[in-house]
Amino acid sequence: MDRFHGLPLDCRLVRRDARPERTIVRVGKAVTFGGATLAIAAGPCSVESREQIDCTAAAVAALGANLLRGGAFKPRTSPYSFQGLGQDGLELLRDAADAHGLAVVTEVIDPRDVTLVAAHADMLQIGARNMQNFPLLRAVGRSGRPVLLKRGPAATIEEWLMAAEYLLVAGNDQVVLCERGIRSFDPLTRNLLDLTAIPLVRELTHLPIIADPSHGTGVARLVEPMALAAIAAGADGLIIEVHPDPASAASDGPQSLSFAGFAGLMGRLATLAESIGRRLPAASLAA
Amino acid sequence: MDRFHGLPLDCRLVRRDARPERTIVRVGKAVTFGGATLAIAAGPCSVESREQIDCTAAAVAALGANLLRGGAFKPRTSPYSFQGLGQDGLELLRDAADAHGLAVVTEVIDPRDVTLVAAHADMLQIGARNMQNFPLLRAVGRSGRPVLLKRGPAATIEEWLMAAEYLLVAGNDQVVLCERGIRSFDPLTRNLLDLTAIPLVRELTHLPIIADPSHGTGVARLVEPMALAAIAAGADGLIIEVHPDPASAASDGPQSLSFAGFAGLMGRLATLAESIGRRLPAASLAA
Amino acid sequence: MDRFHGLPLDCRLVRRDARPERTIVRVGKAVTFGGATLAIAAGPCSVESREQIDCTAAAVAALGANLLRGGAFKPRTSPYSFQGLGQDGLELLRDAADAHGLAVVTEVIDPRDVTLVAAHADMLQIGARNMQNFPLLRAVGRSGRPVLLKRGPAATIEEWLMAAEYLLVAGNDQVVLCERGIRSFDPLTRNLLDLTAIPLVRELTHLPIIADPSHGTGVARLVEPMALAAIAAGADGLIIEVHPDPASAASDGPQSLSFAGFAGLMGRLATLAESIGRRLPAASLAA
Amino acid sequence: MDRFHGLPLDCRLVRRDARPERTIVRVGKAVTFGGATLAIAAGPCSVESREQIDCTAAAVAALGANLLRGGAFKPRTSPYSFQGLGQDGLELLRDAADAHGLAVVTEVIDPRDVTLVAAHADMLQIGARNMQNFPLLRAVGRSGRPVLLKRGPAATIEEWLMAAEYLLVAGNDQVVLCERGIRSFDPLTRNLLDLTAIPLVRELTHLPIIADPSHGTGVARLVEPMALAAIAAGADGLIIEVHPDPASAASDGPQSLSFAGFAGLMGRLATLAESIGRRLPAASLAA
Repeated sequence: MDRFHGLPLDCRLVRRDARPERTIVRVGKAVTFGGATLAIAAGPCSVESREQIDCTAAAVAALGANLLRGGAFKPRTSPYSFQGLGQDGLELLRDAADAHGLAVVTEVIDPRDVTLVAAHADMLQIGARNMQNFPLLRAVGRSGRPVLLKRGPAATIEEWLMAAEYLLVAGNDQVVLCERGIRSFDPLTRNLLDLTAIPLVRELTHLPIIADPSHGTGVARLVEPMALAAIAAGADGLIIEVHPDPASAASDGPQSLSFAGFAGLMGRLATLAESIGRRLPAASLAA
Repeated sequence: MDRFHGLPLDCRLVRRDARPERTIVRVGKAVTFGGATLAIAAGPCSVESREQIDCTAAAVAALGANLLRGGAFKPRTSPYSFQGLGQDGLELLRDAADAHGLAVVTEVIDPRDVTLVAAHADMLQIGARNMQNFPLLRAVGRSGRPVLLKRGPAATIEEWLMAAEYLLVAGNDQVVLCERGIRSFDPLTRNLLDLTAIPLVRELTHLPIIADPSHGTGVARLVEPMALAAIAAGADGLIIEVHPDPASAASDGPQSLSFAGFAGLMGRLATLAESIGRRLPAASLAA
Repeated sequence: MDRFHGLPLDCRLVRRDARPERTIVRVGKAVTFGGATLAIAAGPCSVESREQIDCTAAAVAALGANLLRGGAFKPRTSPYSFQGLGQDGLELLRDAADAHGLAVVTEVIDPRDVTLVAAHADMLQIGARNMQNFPLLRAVGRSGRPVLLKRGPAATIEEWLMAAEYLLVAGNDQVVLCERGIRSFDPLTRNLLDLTAIPLVRELTHLPIIADPSHGTGVARLVEPMALAAIAAGADGLIIEVHPDPASAASDGPQSLSFAGFAGLMGRLATLAESIGRRLPAASLAA
Repeated sequence: MDRFHGLPLDCRLVRRDARPERTIVRVGKAVTFGGATLAIAAGPCSVESREQIDCTAAAVAALGANLLRGGAFKPRTSPYSFQGLGQDGLELLRDAADAHGLAVVTEVIDPRDVTLVAAHADMLQIGARNMQNFPLLRAVGRSGRPVLLKRGPAATIEEWLMAAEYLLVAGNDQVVLCERGIRSFDPLTRNLLDLTAIPLVRELTHLPIIADPSHGTGVARLVEPMALAAIAAGADGLIIEVHPDPASAASDGPQSLSFAGFAGLMGRLATLAESIGRRLPAASLAA
């Protein structure tokens, strides 16, 4: 009756039955992925300035997020688009997170930058375009930092799990998977968020999984319903783009929430999460 | 900022701003789609026998469904597969539904059968393969029966809304849209359930929308999480395949819930729905 | 080593080894699909007027086509688009074809129209949207007319062959398959022409296969290179949209060739076909 | 009428009208991409041993290829699969090519390896998984070597051209695009070879384009018809997997041609190419 009980032969370390219990990934002092408490990463697509990242950190921390997201090294389709602030951006991100009690998750796109990024971030993100960048996977696997591994836009679930296997083989089992939408044919959305991947991945592996409804839809108004749906489907957390002024964002403005939008989402999320036995990070209770 | 505010020019009757309020579709005496109360259709893929459909109707009614689904005319990929019981199946379905206080939704695949099916069913389903079967849309549009219009596996949202427009042009505005998964590349699931279609359709049209997580995944164990996710995303109801003995079903066994599986789903659904201000059909309260 | 030698179990009549030799489909007095001579169908998307269809028939016949295509019953995404001239269109098509020595291929979209269309056409087309319209397949299968069965935009090769099986089971083995593009993600083309389907289908079945580069690309300038590629890949013929004035066509203008464009295509096609041991229809030699 | 005349704004250097003439890419002493003579790269997926690569080089040179392909650094879905011979493989490849008068094209997957690979190869390949690995694109762009840029399995034509733009911005205009199949839904083939990309790319850019029917289909028996089709569609060359014993290949055996298979392909290719005004490399005339 089951289509997916023929697990990929080579998924030795990530498969569900390789461990007696689900993996809990710990990031910084206070964040966990995979337990009853959800992990909520929020912040801008790109770090643009000290003021922008600090005020965003303050806002998302107050509203209950426990990780600050923000890109310093940006993979961009065009060589003429803003490529991120690089090391300066990492420092701004670290300062803002520290000032507001958040952990930092940020993307690394070059194996030669892993040491630098790991010195500033609590969690390293491997982006969708790099899911099968094997030298990068190996370097990040050896970094000792927890990893957020996004699904490639044309990757099967099996290929995604095999990419995670590269990280575990390199000695790093602090890996969180992130569904962020795959390529499909409808022009009304940027990607097609595959929420079925959430229960499927939970059945196939012991690793936690979160969703990125910002990239998964590309449309700010769709972020909240898809965030709620992801948690209802069993996701262990969310990563959400939030910007003080989405209309002026250097990148991804159309899919970024304003602070008010994020506040609305977190309020409705708290109620829904409670109904299924989960809760928002403790920070939000204090807020 | 918005990708989809360029509404299709020809969507004259289905577009959101064509009416002051959302359409509430009424089926039979007691079912509504589009209000605070969810509509829950449940039953087997195919009507197989009086005993099978009657015991399923009894079970799903007791557990809170308010419509009985079941196929009498089955569109099958192979001409050698079971094609349904035809008119006999319709009669068995009607009897079972009446005995247990349910409304009937069933598929019609031939414009020449619309009158026959409409004589037995409260709601006519147009299946995914027939979403652009225009003679069928016209015939069903003139039937006076409420319609459940499934999305085609390769249909854009715009094409789907234009198919609904054929029904409204023919004089029938009692139309419910149903997301049931689109074609994609991952072999672990039968289709890819596009839950983003739910908030997107709610923005674009005044018509109600439900989800079919049974066809949308093809895997029974994935039905419950995706049903919960669909409701969290804003769906107005669900259609679920339930069979007294999925392992022996004449069709779609691997994606059918047992009575116990459906009971578990309805229990968790009641809690989640309440958290977002919706509720299961009244029948289930009485059960 | 082979992925596709596990032939679908239920493909009893269409599978390659069900017959000792490839099927040659004969249409009208002079057209064959499946031999060394290619079949070339050309004409407008829609029959619009006597003048339009007659001058197109004259042109394409002179340039070497042996079938006239043209829609009288048009399946249209929008109910407000031109739906075709119906029976009048069939008569215009028949007259134009007879006047210029061509056979007629035209689409039927309603099982109730099969007798009517079969009275005017030499070959019945089942369009992409109706590939799994099983009542229509059964009616056309019993019509006694050769059939052009287009592939659905989300149909696997196996599903397509099973649709052909419906025709053969109904007693009609005069079936030609037509690849016309599937749904994919690139917005620059209307569909994605899957030319690999041609050698794959030739391996799996004894039925002939042709290509439709007009719908397969949606862009007139891409029609000629893809027509040449289809023949190089082993196609038994082509179906091409040709219009006296593409810019003013009632439908599909952007993908229609002018007479000059069609002349250029036929010239280069003759040379390429000869290099691989095939030839254009005899009519063109006489032209 | 044209869908694609709105060229991407940022494609400044690769767009067709950025140069008066098409770019001819020259590799080694004798190979050109983009002129009347086709470029033919052939060889195994992976370099496995001195004997294997030398006998393959001898065979493909005798049969008319002018480049030797072979992987020394292999990007593999599984960390447990053969990852290539690394630097040893590069040396074996160089020796084999030199012994038989071929140029070398091989993949580089790590920006830290670009100098090493460029020291042994005449042309650097960027594989499908790395099409948007921007640090790699920049490093290869600065290498001074001609580049073979494969299309990513979910990349739009526009994204692909923007990846090429990264190479040109870095100062390298010796770039050849390679269509190798995109992700789609039919399980009978490994990828879906998008041959329409060939005339489309030729219209949009001045850079040459070739096809890889081996990865594009994943099935050896489909390689020849799709190779012929690619040339008929206007491709400037081919890259083909050839192995002395496909059944024992360390990788990609099911899609590799034997020497006999490659000989058959080259014979039929010579005839077809001549019919459209193109020719095989001069080496093959001497053979």
